[in-house]
Amino acid sequence: MIFASDNWAGASEAVVRAVAAAAAGPARPYGRDTLTEAVEAAFASVFEHEVAVFFVATGTAANALALAHYARPGGVVICHEASHLVADEAGAPEFFGAGTRLCGVAGPGGILAPATVAAALDRYRPDLLHSGQPSAVSISQLTEAGVAWRPAEIAAVAAVAHGKGLPLHMDGARFANAVAGTGLSPADLTWRSGVDVLSFGGTKNGCMAAEAVVFFDRGTAQGFEFTRKRAGQLFSKSRFVAAQFAAYLEDGHWLALAGHANAMAARLGAAIRAAGGRLAAEPDGNELFAVLPKVAADRLKEEGAVFYDWPTAGFDIAPLGADEVFVRLVASFATREEEVDRFAALLAA
Amino acid sequence: MIFASDNWAGASEAVVRAVAAAAAGPARPYGRDTLTEAVEAAFASVFEHEVAVFFVATGTAANALALAHYARPGGVVICHEASHLVADEAGAPEFFGAGTRLCGVAGPGGILAPATVAAALDRYRPDLLHSGQPSAVSISQLTEAGVAWRPAEIAAVAAVAHGKGLPLHMDGARFANAVAGTGLSPADLTWRSGVDVLSFGGTKNGCMAAEAVVFFDRGTAQGFEFTRKRAGQLFSKSRFVAAQFAAYLEDGHWLALAGHANAMAARLGAAIRAAGGRLAAEPDGNELFAVLPKVAADRLKEEGAVFYDWPTAGFDIAPLGADEVFVRLVASFATREEEVDRFAALLAA
Amino acid sequence: MIFASDNWAGASEAVVRAVAAAAAGPARPYGRDTLTEAVEAAFASVFEHEVAVFFVATGTAANALALAHYARPGGVVICHEASHLVADEAGAPEFFGAGTRLCGVAGPGGILAPATVAAALDRYRPDLLHSGQPSAVSISQLTEAGVAWRPAEIAAVAAVAHGKGLPLHMDGARFANAVAGTGLSPADLTWRSGVDVLSFGGTKNGCMAAEAVVFFDRGTAQGFEFTRKRAGQLFSKSRFVAAQFAAYLEDGHWLALAGHANAMAARLGAAIRAAGGRLAAEPDGNELFAVLPKVAADRLKEEGAVFYDWPTAGFDIAPLGADEVFVRLVASFATREEEVDRFAALLAA
Amino acid sequence: MIFASDNWAGASEAVVRAVAAAAAGPARPYGRDTLTEAVEAAFASVFEHEVAVFFVATGTAANALALAHYARPGGVVICHEASHLVADEAGAPEFFGAGTRLCGVAGPGGILAPATVAAALDRYRPDLLHSGQPSAVSISQLTEAGVAWRPAEIAAVAAVAHGKGLPLHMDGARFANAVAGTGLSPADLTWRSGVDVLSFGGTKNGCMAAEAVVFFDRGTAQGFEFTRKRAGQLFSKSRFVAAQFAAYLEDGHWLALAGHANAMAARLGAAIRAAGGRLAAEPDGNELFAVLPKVAADRLKEEGAVFYDWPTAGFDIAPLGADEVFVRLVASFATREEEVDRFAALLAA
Repeated sequence: MIFASDNWAGASEAVVRAVAAAAAGPARPYGRDTLTEAVEAAFASVFEHEVAVFFVATGTAANALALAHYARPGGVVICHEASHLVADEAGAPEFFGAGTRLCGVAGPGGILAPATVAAALDRYRPDLLHSGQPSAVSISQLTEAGVAWRPAEIAAVAAVAHGKGLPLHMDGARFANAVAGTGLSPADLTWRSGVDVLSFGGTKNGCMAAEAVVFFDRGTAQGFEFTRKRAGQLFSKSRFVAAQFAAYLEDGHWLALAGHANAMAARLGAAIRAAGGRLAAEPDGNELFAVLPKVAADRLKEEGAVFYDWPTAGFDIAPLGADEVFVRLVASFATREEEVDRFAALLAA
Repeated sequence: MIFASDNWAGASEAVVRAVAAAAAGPARPYGRDTLTEAVEAAFASVFEHEVAVFFVATGTAANALALAHYARPGGVVICHEASHLVADEAGAPEFFGAGTRLCGVAGPGGILAPATVAAALDRYRPDLLHSGQPSAVSISQLTEAGVAWRPAEIAAVAAVAHGKGLPLHMDGARFANAVAGTGLSPADLTWRSGVDVLSFGGTKNGCMAAEAVVFFDRGTAQGFEFTRKRAGQLFSKSRFVAAQFAAYLEDGHWLALAGHANAMAARLGAAIRAAGGRLAAEPDGNELFAVLPKVAADRLKEEGAVFYDWPTAGFDIAPLGADEVFVRLVASFATREEEVDRFAALLAA
Repeated sequence: MIFASDNWAGASEAVVRAVAAAAAGPARPYGRDTLTEAVEAAFASVFEHEVAVFFVATGTAANALALAHYARPGGVVICHEASHLVADEAGAPEFFGAGTRLCGVAGPGGILAPATVAAALDRYRPDLLHSGQPSAVSISQLTEAGVAWRPAEIAAVAAVAHGKGLPLHMDGARFANAVAGTGLSPADLTWRSGVDVLSFGGTKNGCMAAEAVVFFDRGTAQGFEFTRKRAGQLFSKSRFVAAQFAAYLEDGHWLALAGHANAMAARLGAAIRAAGGRLAAEPDGNELFAVLPKVAADRLKEEGAVFYDWPTAGFDIAPLGADEVFVRLVASFATREEEVDRFAALLAA
Repeated sequence: MIFASDNWAGASEAVVRAVAAAAAGPARPYGRDTLTEAVEAAFASVFEHEVAVFFVATGTAANALALAHYARPGGVVICHEASHLVADEAGAPEFFGAGTRLCGVAGPGGILAPATVAAALDRYRPDLLHSGQPSAVSISQLTEAGVAWRPAEIAAVAAVAHGKGLPLHMDGARFANAVAGTGLSPADLTWRSGVDVLSFGGTKNGCMAAEAVVFFDRGTAQGFEFTRKRAGQLFSKSRFVAAQFAAYLEDGHWLALAGHANAMAARLGAAIRAAGGRLAAEPDGNELFAVLPKVAADRLKEEGAVFYDWPTAGFDIAPLGADEVFVRLVASFATREEEVDRFAALLAA
């Protein structure tokens, strides 16, 4: 009953097999191996578009380096105040951008309204030297609240960013869950809606350590290979990341994994509702935010369930009662129905 | 016949098995899993000393972050002019140290004489604000010329560094080959000789991507976890690096792998000598630098051998004849006797 | 009728004379001249405490370098959301701290409540690697709202900062106005209340370009000379900054200048009140924030008055009427009574 | 008898008068005052070309920010191994360029041969990710050896830089002395010979603190105002730097000052020769490098002469005798004939 985070899970069998298979024989290092080259083609196929793909070690690196590519002196990135960038990356975006500032703004469910973004950008007028100047807009798919951005929402924010000459970055640590959850195409959720650069995460969804920065305009990516190398993020045995992505993207394996995680979250949500708990929202992906009776939450933890209490700030829920707690529950590709059902049973007890 | 670099090899079977085995079941993320904790104990056992161990993605990251931990404004790192830091890391040490300067000095075979280090340090007097100030001394084991530092040599440089209050860093990308080649203990080659922090490389010697920064005084390491996290180098599924290291260090597997690589280099060296080629030096590890007849080198490449021409600067060899080339040849854990023998046969033909 | 900012004024006659007098004859460069040394003693006398004093070119440099001295990887500075650090320094604090984050919090009149600071600090728990970690608390004297911190207020925030092992920095761009306005001693407003490091501004109050970072514990300042030099902020002809400060601090000249500016602001405030305008607060120093009839403000601008419209956010004023504007008015050492009276006459017309 | 450095001198009377005159009355801050605007026109006139001019506080800032404007990840600046950048700026170029590396190369008298620059650039091939990539070439006028670059020499290096798409930066800390010494026009010594950006120094030659970054293509300068502001180098009372430059550039005052300094150096050089001393070279400007009898140097210092012993490395002089010393002697605008003659008399005694 591990619902703490999807990064508590291991790796899918297909990914493990691919990594093991990649171990034999020689290969050119530093991303010039045939497997790495093939993966770029696989990404292009998945996104129905040319791409430049750069593997990195972590999601933090993907986000920070993608934004650093667009950094300027005094640069400011507009993003959600609860985003991973702001809350969980220990200053990496600031560091790699040589002092980039994150300007966190509010939005229900982690979704930014175009007017909110426009207002934030307007605070950094090009002629106001002292305030700094915007360098990018960043959104998260899924959001930190577990919500999936829809194409029209993305496009509206992209229009604001592009109107100021700024790129739109998407933190896709849980991009697979968003694709599986919405049933929309990777293309519709990215470049067709105006996303310029994507942090594509595989680690949380069945890979071991497979993250990539994906540019949808290869020309724009020029020089990024130096940004990555200078960051100590160029793997010499790139094949072992490539193998993970190859298996991950093959025959929709990534969407099968994410679809399972999403289904487990939905099953869990239904069980919580059935037991009288409240959900902050219907889950779009594999994350649930729920109000539980404190006594039930305590019992679950005693029985071995792992999940985190969560701040209610930013969620659309009625105030908690004194005997209630607000929690986050995350399902993964490895979550089993039995775990969910045991959780449900303990909750209802 | 791949002798281009040891990072052209894949991963050892034991490492692959360990990674596969680690894929099942849940584990705490971000290095708080039991496997990661166990690996720290394994390192302590190998080094016969307390250690603080931090996994990172690449050797460049290990070196740059280790040195950044000691960085100061205007800081300067004394190292060999041909070191990996200087030649191959695209400014990562400078970047992570917020402007650290590398001061490369000369030394035969990549070994720095204590007097050379002392002279370099003397150029940065504490009262001379304008020159900057030294922040660390760094050496490489093996050196870029394939030579192993001996304890007395290390201790002599450590004494100079410590005399100025500076730490001694060792880039151990090929530390295993040095241990196997010298037959000395890991302890003798590090903390017993005055090394304060080690970049411990596993990738080149049979791992997939396993590098670690090892501090020999746990107190000194305080705060480094933030340096690593801010660098985007904290793996969420740390278990997959831990699994590699666990297999690597178990029952001397790492030394068996390195010993094989060294033996293959020795066999290759003997074959070159037998065929009339010249070696720059007797190999201490798995790297050879040799003068070959140009015609033989060309024939080998035509037949599929992969190796690089190399600049002669810094090597103690007689000037090349017009029909000679200088090359680097690197053996790995995966090099097979047949490859070496085929190389030898083609060379002698 | 220049009330746009105190940096529109020139320099006081005493400062000009001192600079001119310093121009003759040789002097050791880079701060080793006798005048610079004498100024450190003058600062010690003014503050009744040992000090380490470092001249820099601008207030932005003073703030950014003072905070950089305490920076750590993932470091966060708690300050007011409307502070100069946040609003007007184009990312300098972030840049010089190699990625320092500013965490702006609210407080009426620019004053931070200790509970607010404590709550902000609590978000960065030492064991929560992902959030970063606090590195300093910074307050502004005067605040951006023109309010002077009182010793008890400073001491309360200092206690919170020190309780976490953090230094308290004070941005004293208008420190002279605060001292003159409160009638309290420089010592009471700084180290006696727990301030560790002060950006001491002279430029806005009658100097040409004279800013200093003042540490109240000389030991703490160790290494700062490299931070300054690396920032390109070490003047070779330091005597010309020293001369400004020498004249500025001599015989209370700095307080006479500030006292005049404050008196002019008070006179202006009285005139505004008399004409039916509203003040956001009684001025503590040389800054006024006032609600004026729009028609009067327009007339004043037409007649040559210079001042800025200002956002009302954070000020304790009743909502503006449709025919009202909110403005900032700043008096300086050079403001003349006639200017104030002419402004008053035009306002009342 | 101050020959230690030209920054031991004060300021010229005309500069002092201009600064004093600028102190009266209000002026727009942050470089939007009429005096600052007028100075840009004065620079354009001096250089017979459009310019974008940015005042900064120090020569170190001018160099470091000019180069930072062109910085890239993994960027490397080719310059002389004895340049001020390398020897005297405590890592400022590395810091402001977020890790820029300085690649110092040799050249007699501080002059770089185009072949030397080309060879250095060739070490950083665009396809060799690991080595980094060149971002600029920088030369010094006068060189650190006191030699003036001639237009053909500049143009030859500029051609190499531009051939690689790189800008040519000139550190003009003693640009005035070079112009006065060669009798060539500012235009011929800069943009007509291919210089793209100049650090124009006034401080050493009669100003108090007046340094500027001058771009010869205004379009190229775009964004530099943020680089400067973020560096804490934007003076609020810009008029006081502008006043210095206005007086400095008016009616050739700067060249009169430099001409005097150069003449004093020449007079000193003649006296040294007459007394049997040796000069490393005929001075092009205000710096002499000379071999003196040790006994004479000691006597001079006892009598109050101030000058520095200097390393002979890089100078074209016969080996020193045991009773000889090598020294640097710098004249300034403030050097008086009597000082030179007294030095000469003591030397000959």
